Amino acid sequence: MEPVLKTIGIVHSSLKHLSDCPLQENEKAPQAVIEVYEDFQEGLKDVQVDDELILLTWLHQADRTILTTQPRNDPHAPLTGIFSTRSPDRPNPIGLHIVKVAAISANGQLRVSGLEVLDQTPVVDIKPDLKRG
Amino acid sequence: MEPVLKTIGIVHSSLKHLSDCPLQENEKAPQAVIEVYEDFQEGLKDVQVDDELILLTWLHQADRTILTTQPRNDPHAPLTGIFSTRSPDRPNPIGLHIVKVAAISANGQLRVSGLEVLDQTPVVDIKPDLKRG
Repeated sequence: MEPVLKTIGIVHSSLKHLSDCPLQENEKAPQAVIEVYEDFQEGLKDVQVDDELILLTWLHQADRTILTTQPRNDPHAPLTGIFSTRSPDRPNPIGLHIVKVAAISANGQLRVSGLEVLDQTPVVDIKPDLKRG
Repeated sequence: MEPVLKTIGIVHSSLKHLSDCPLQENEKAPQAVIEVYEDFQEGLKDVQVDDELILLTWLHQADRTILTTQPRNDPHAPLTGIFSTRSPDRPNPIGLHIVKVAAISANGQLRVSGLEVLDQTPVVDIKPDLKRG
């Protein structure tokens, strides 16, 4: 039986269409708000402003049948195996983003630095950056 | 409807029991073999020896109901929100591992450097390290 993810929250962003989204978070992605749903908010209790977090999202508009792609949508690039790219189109479109916490509100909302995903993207996990426990 | 993951492969490791597993990959984890299933092997075509990859696994023995934990199983540590820890016990037990490819075989098997997960752990994604495409 294949694993079923729990949606722990959702992204609120000014990016409303895929054509608005920068390809990587260092390309002028806007701030965004991560809303963690009430059932999971206890897990946020030690997250602090200025923490660097790894955010895992579910890129719900991705094509899950793709195994090769042209990186960065360049029609002249050779077809590249999907596991050597960060394309959202892949068997399991789990987005991996490094974000910095700019503000936290009591109802489980985290304002974070540049995030390149679409408004309403489901959130599936939050981890501390790789240097921490 | 909640997202359903596809298992793209499986880990073969000498770590047969949870009590054998080091807590982090830098704590003397053994080499392991990632077997990518035939349906997904085309996606590996550009992976090369010495590549650093981000491996996402599904930590199938985790407790998905946990929201706070004592880091590193220290009974004297304060209870910490799960999203500030890398505990496998969390709503979506997606393991995130940085591995280096030591060898590749034609049938979709990648031998990788230290990996701290259990034998038979499902693999759900492989990405290049964050500095690449």
